[in-house]
Amino acid sequence: METNISEVVMGLDTVWVLLCAALVFFMEAGFAALEAGFIRAKNSLNIIMKVFMDCTVGMLGYWAIGFAIMYGLSQGGLFGTSGFFLEGNLKHLDLGIPVYAYWIFQAAFAIAVATIVSGAVAERMKFGPYIIFSFIATAIIYPISGHWIWSSDGWLANLGMIDFAGSAAVHAVGGWASLAAVMVLGPRKGKYRKDGSVNVLPAHNLPLAALGAFILWFGWFGFNPGSTLSGLDLNIARIAVTTNLAAAAGGTMATIFTMWKYGKPDASMVINGSLAGLVAITSGTAFVSPTSAVIIGAIAGILVVVAVEFFDKIKADDPVGAIAVHGACGSFGVIAVGLFAEDRGLFFSGDPSLLLIQAFGVAVVSLWAFATTFLTFTILKKVIGIRVSEEEELNGMDVSEHGIASYCSLETEAMMQEY
Amino acid sequence: METNISEVVMGLDTVWVLLCAALVFFMEAGFAALEAGFIRAKNSLNIIMKVFMDCTVGMLGYWAIGFAIMYGLSQGGLFGTSGFFLEGNLKHLDLGIPVYAYWIFQAAFAIAVATIVSGAVAERMKFGPYIIFSFIATAIIYPISGHWIWSSDGWLANLGMIDFAGSAAVHAVGGWASLAAVMVLGPRKGKYRKDGSVNVLPAHNLPLAALGAFILWFGWFGFNPGSTLSGLDLNIARIAVTTNLAAAAGGTMATIFTMWKYGKPDASMVINGSLAGLVAITSGTAFVSPTSAVIIGAIAGILVVVAVEFFDKIKADDPVGAIAVHGACGSFGVIAVGLFAEDRGLFFSGDPSLLLIQAFGVAVVSLWAFATTFLTFTILKKVIGIRVSEEEELNGMDVSEHGIASYCSLETEAMMQEY
Amino acid sequence: METNISEVVMGLDTVWVLLCAALVFFMEAGFAALEAGFIRAKNSLNIIMKVFMDCTVGMLGYWAIGFAIMYGLSQGGLFGTSGFFLEGNLKHLDLGIPVYAYWIFQAAFAIAVATIVSGAVAERMKFGPYIIFSFIATAIIYPISGHWIWSSDGWLANLGMIDFAGSAAVHAVGGWASLAAVMVLGPRKGKYRKDGSVNVLPAHNLPLAALGAFILWFGWFGFNPGSTLSGLDLNIARIAVTTNLAAAAGGTMATIFTMWKYGKPDASMVINGSLAGLVAITSGTAFVSPTSAVIIGAIAGILVVVAVEFFDKIKADDPVGAIAVHGACGSFGVIAVGLFAEDRGLFFSGDPSLLLIQAFGVAVVSLWAFATTFLTFTILKKVIGIRVSEEEELNGMDVSEHGIASYCSLETEAMMQEY
Repeated sequence: METNISEVVMGLDTVWVLLCAALVFFMEAGFAALEAGFIRAKNSLNIIMKVFMDCTVGMLGYWAIGFAIMYGLSQGGLFGTSGFFLEGNLKHLDLGIPVYAYWIFQAAFAIAVATIVSGAVAERMKFGPYIIFSFIATAIIYPISGHWIWSSDGWLANLGMIDFAGSAAVHAVGGWASLAAVMVLGPRKGKYRKDGSVNVLPAHNLPLAALGAFILWFGWFGFNPGSTLSGLDLNIARIAVTTNLAAAAGGTMATIFTMWKYGKPDASMVINGSLAGLVAITSGTAFVSPTSAVIIGAIAGILVVVAVEFFDKIKADDPVGAIAVHGACGSFGVIAVGLFAEDRGLFFSGDPSLLLIQAFGVAVVSLWAFATTFLTFTILKKVIGIRVSEEEELNGMDVSEHGIASYCSLETEAMMQEY
Repeated sequence: METNISEVVMGLDTVWVLLCAALVFFMEAGFAALEAGFIRAKNSLNIIMKVFMDCTVGMLGYWAIGFAIMYGLSQGGLFGTSGFFLEGNLKHLDLGIPVYAYWIFQAAFAIAVATIVSGAVAERMKFGPYIIFSFIATAIIYPISGHWIWSSDGWLANLGMIDFAGSAAVHAVGGWASLAAVMVLGPRKGKYRKDGSVNVLPAHNLPLAALGAFILWFGWFGFNPGSTLSGLDLNIARIAVTTNLAAAAGGTMATIFTMWKYGKPDASMVINGSLAGLVAITSGTAFVSPTSAVIIGAIAGILVVVAVEFFDKIKADDPVGAIAVHGACGSFGVIAVGLFAEDRGLFFSGDPSLLLIQAFGVAVVSLWAFATTFLTFTILKKVIGIRVSEEEELNGMDVSEHGIASYCSLETEAMMQEY
Repeated sequence: METNISEVVMGLDTVWVLLCAALVFFMEAGFAALEAGFIRAKNSLNIIMKVFMDCTVGMLGYWAIGFAIMYGLSQGGLFGTSGFFLEGNLKHLDLGIPVYAYWIFQAAFAIAVATIVSGAVAERMKFGPYIIFSFIATAIIYPISGHWIWSSDGWLANLGMIDFAGSAAVHAVGGWASLAAVMVLGPRKGKYRKDGSVNVLPAHNLPLAALGAFILWFGWFGFNPGSTLSGLDLNIARIAVTTNLAAAAGGTMATIFTMWKYGKPDASMVINGSLAGLVAITSGTAFVSPTSAVIIGAIAGILVVVAVEFFDKIKADDPVGAIAVHGACGSFGVIAVGLFAEDRGLFFSGDPSLLLIQAFGVAVVSLWAFATTFLTFTILKKVIGIRVSEEEELNGMDVSEHGIASYCSLETEAMMQEY
């Protein structure tokens, strides 16, 4: 029997989405390596295990509850109510690919939101409450604001808000949730001195962090282009270009800016500069020109440096810069669509209406993420406690939470030898 | 000239299989990182080089001999005899893709089997005999049992055994071969004390091990869905979902189970829990529901912990848990098909016949892998010796086998400086 | 509306090229890890940041200038002049995919050339001049010789030179540029003793280097097969096989050769042996048989060992072996096409004409890369200086160039603790 052309189209689109989903999932490895590398060795296993919990418990949360709330039949544009455990009515999605393919792509996005927060709360948050938060984030917090933006019936979508691959839905939500989390949690011991000065707590493995950044950049080849959900949509080529150019520009500007400001190119800022470019372009990647992408990325590359300093000044201790990268640059990216979109952006159409919608939309979801995370962390703090003891923080969470250190050197090995 | 639709189908399927083959090949990086991270620093380069030998010598073995034995013209369902060096008659394969595409996908599977064993024999097996074993495993041991299961004329295939992506053909074979290998090789010096207690030999780099686990999970996006050999088979979407949910459930249950049992979530058990879920779902991934996948993964996540303890109790010293993950959970996964398969599994059809076939099939191939590996190792032991000397084991195999240590710290560097 | 079959073809080809581009881009992570692992810890962050600069500044250089020079409207086969900033006339490319898809794939190749050089100049070249070189390499040096070979109007292309995926255009160019660079730059302090003997400066993290090699090998699944620019071209299957077999043979022969020569398998030589096989097959991967690929890879696996020793003898200090791997084995690979190509190679046709063209072509582009890099480095040396001070070299470039060390151990962390 001859294959039908529509079967081929569906096959191609499914192949595309599954391979892109794999790339997005692999970003979890990038986050884990980046975050572990940026923090102290004594807490590095713990942060990796938290990211692992997003992939395990968080993924189950999105399967059991989150997907239904995000993409189920809409209740007035506020949240969905069908598709729990991937069962029940999901026909309204009207997909060109199997719903399972759609789910795995979406699930990889959902767990990224929790993972963004994991970096900000590193080095002092207890493991158990983190697992609970990861579940709540993927099952409820992210899906609800995600419904507003990405469900065809979502109220922000109906307002006309554009967020192609999630500078708002994923990054701003993750970034501002991170701010709420660290405000409830408080800074790491020893980060801010009594005289108000900042004590830089050392990154323990910058090659690992850089490897994480490369993996994240690699994963973005799936994150943004895959969001077309179709390989037939040739705009995937433009998306790949704007995504990469924004990353390139972000890293370049962070290099120049820190050379000028500090006298030396700051490695972690350069890395975060490229990530900031990626985060910022994510919203408009399908709608802006390569040149606009370079400008958006370049601005993000400076903004992230300024934002990191700002959040340090207000003592929002974020060991990996998650609030600056995802919160500040994600929000900027959503707004940038209102400026740079080729048809409706202010700079091209002269019409500020999209800009206003974008600004309003990202403000709403940021507030949502901040408020619900603040509430969740506050309740967790009261009920079971969210912070390890001072002694555990001093000795490191790898030993206190998992009973083992991340590393055992050749020298230590030799000493431990019994025979 | 207009392109024919059947050409497009073949192109799509070839693209799919090649990209999945790349993902499966990349799992070698995952194995290398996982195994190196789980063992001591002084042997970490050696284990990585062994994995590298699987990719080089092992791949040549599968090219020269293995593929012909596995997929050549069948001799009574026992083994194949055409296609050595990728030449000769392979028309009976009746593939929808070029035979070269099929080969590279299969080759990536073959080397994984040898690599599974490399982890179990880490920290004491000599390099030379390992290379020989790697060649024999990819050229003979794996291809023969693989022929039984996956050749269309294989006798187990004809019995009705189902092993979609290889819980039996790859994982049970690799896992039970590992058991045979460590029984001939003996435990590492100092692992078991005279009073019978276990001395935990330290993992030297858990972030590296975790990175390896992420890479393996990422690679499974190719391992299982790619096994359809066609991107037009929309079941790839279900396969991606069941694969991921089983991994998520395995990691989640290992977390809960070790928290309950040891008071703390054991990092290496959690990692192995997710891998156990992946291994267990591999056989039935195309035939079970997402909910069944969660149950299969959850059981594997507990089974792996119990199995690790069991093999330690019988002094089968396996530094990375390969026997538990691949042997125990692979076998369980094959049997699980007989329980959970949507059409013919016991729980859905009430008919135990598939279950009996599955149990019989996995028992046969496990026995085959165990016996042939036991024999190979015994002969190697007699003829050239398989174990490094006590002194080499004490000093570490990186230095004795390769003349160099894996790591050189900032401090050591400074001391070595001549100028 | 029914989708047209030509739309499906274009979609499939675009999906293929974008995913392969992602794999090629990810090779930057491989280079970074390989190079960092092979050098001393004190300079490891610096080398990674240089690779990061290729991805950022270098990519912008290829966007602004390089692509136009390489693929713009040809001026007499010497260089192109349209398409700056991805704008203007590019219709002559006559692509079956969007020009943006073509660009991102090509951009990932361009930055690889600069990155090859980064390894050779590691541990003593200043950061600022490196950024300038990276820009010049991706904007001018590589695009011009690339135009000769790969533009349909290029003069070497018109001569009949074959360089399928770039043993000449990428690897020989990068490799011989590396030789020029190290000749101007001079060897690292302490590498060559006054008595003429070689002082091996220690690799600081061989697991990291090996992980880099695995990533590079994985990336080659995109580098070579993706160069068809079409998933409908079923030759992608053969390309995947010849690529992998050459890598396998290169690693195998380097193992055997160093075991025979040094008594032990040299880990870094084995790794470089596989990379040498990959580099050497890249030119002919689409035109040779699997058996020929094994032979080409095997020769490269020996050649790389001999070449590393040769360049050490002439005091061309190359910490990672880039000249040997990319220069020597890349050149060999181009010539090998003239020997092993199934239709026109000397061994099959008896006609030496292709061989002569190949030898001439690779000589020309190698000379071009050597001369222009020599000139660029000489000017940079005169104008701004290219080498860090002796003191900076002694103390390590991570601290002098970025103000931070790559690593902070558990012990150092504990000492730094203020609370």
